[in-house]
Amino acid sequence: MPEFLYGHWAVIEAMRAGRRGLDALMIHERAEKRGAVGDAISMAQELNVPVQRVQRRILDDLANNGNHQGLVLRVEPYPYCDLEDILTHAARRREKPFILLLDLLKDPQNVGSLIRVSDAVGAHGIVIQERRSVAVTPAVVNASSGAVEHTNVAQVPNLVNAMKELKTQDVWLVGLDVGPNIPPLDKTDLNMALGLVMGSEGEGLRRLVRDTCDLLLTLPMRGEVGSLNVATAGAIALYSAWSARGWEGWAHA
Amino acid sequence: MPEFLYGHWAVIEAMRAGRRGLDALMIHERAEKRGAVGDAISMAQELNVPVQRVQRRILDDLANNGNHQGLVLRVEPYPYCDLEDILTHAARRREKPFILLLDLLKDPQNVGSLIRVSDAVGAHGIVIQERRSVAVTPAVVNASSGAVEHTNVAQVPNLVNAMKELKTQDVWLVGLDVGPNIPPLDKTDLNMALGLVMGSEGEGLRRLVRDTCDLLLTLPMRGEVGSLNVATAGAIALYSAWSARGWEGWAHA
Repeated sequence: MPEFLYGHWAVIEAMRAGRRGLDALMIHERAEKRGAVGDAISMAQELNVPVQRVQRRILDDLANNGNHQGLVLRVEPYPYCDLEDILTHAARRREKPFILLLDLLKDPQNVGSLIRVSDAVGAHGIVIQERRSVAVTPAVVNASSGAVEHTNVAQVPNLVNAMKELKTQDVWLVGLDVGPNIPPLDKTDLNMALGLVMGSEGEGLRRLVRDTCDLLLTLPMRGEVGSLNVATAGAIALYSAWSARGWEGWAHA
Repeated sequence: MPEFLYGHWAVIEAMRAGRRGLDALMIHERAEKRGAVGDAISMAQELNVPVQRVQRRILDDLANNGNHQGLVLRVEPYPYCDLEDILTHAARRREKPFILLLDLLKDPQNVGSLIRVSDAVGAHGIVIQERRSVAVTPAVVNASSGAVEHTNVAQVPNLVNAMKELKTQDVWLVGLDVGPNIPPLDKTDLNMALGLVMGSEGEGLRRLVRDTCDLLLTLPMRGEVGSLNVATAGAIALYSAWSARGWEGWAHA
């Protein structure tokens, strides 16, 4: 089944990454050939991807009324990887594994945002469960600003089993949790082979997922409104871990 | 001019904070009295705020087609504070000032999200410029999950003048910037009287704002997609600063 990516960055990064088959670029019939649209057309021509001019309502339909910015790209399905690929990627870079695991997140915006931050901190991959969780849909690609086209995402049948497999590879699983007796995020040196586990919106970590973690940490909060969006909390945790790693791999470090 | 707050948390936190006059609570004509709607009705009754049942399209109109979740609250305008109030708030808590300054941000979602995080880390206030910037609109209240009803927001005629005034009060102004020769966020101990300055979406800090900062720091990034949303970057910076302060004021510290 083909998929329809939409939005400037989703379309441009999918072409730049070149990891999936590219069927056709569809642009608004009256779009001018400049800015991001111009860039997308040039890239498509270089890659021999047909460019079609279509009516706005066709773009609206293909993008499921998402904010397509006049660009839709018809592509092959998202190329998921295996857990093994993520560990191999870390080993090739000679870095301790740095993995994000998402427990049944539901909102494409949150998942996309977390994948974008994972890319920014150089995490080696993201693990999501096949059922009852958001997959890498075009909405996720869009919300990630196309970053997911460059990152490793493993879609596993069962998150707890994947966690157990990572444990056998000496990856420490740190769950971000909420509660009075949980130490704060910076209490533990996160410069280790790390799987950071985030719970879903509203529900948090499932009990079995929590119990399978080696360690629970919490994001302190004071103030009147006692919670943060999971994408915000995850971004802070990912940066905290990367900071503990001394900004490993940063060009200006 | 009355304003129309919308959404569960915006409405409930505005009533809980009790900082603005409350004219009327409007709920969907067929809404059941349970969950957040039930809570809102109970609060309104306790506070002697009239409750009106109205048609969905009236709620849609009043909320400007925002996601009102069946609740709209008619209120007096947002009670801005002065710079002085922010410093007084810090002094009363016997804490070094911790202030967020926003340079011409345009997106209510970003501003609301940053205010929510400011509340979570116990920042003493937020400074925004009157013109060419988002104000505390109902969309911002909604995006902040109502947190802004509890926080100090100073709306100043000129951000650079406000920065200069803060400097005379020994507040250090740290701008979050992008560039190759800027040290990373954790290079400086942010446990000081701090004004954290964030630039706008796309444009970053204006030159004069940047030049008025005492110090520039950057959020390291690696990966393929080279930028983060300003709300994400700001959340990370605010948490980094609060962590440097030893989670001051956290109930579980």
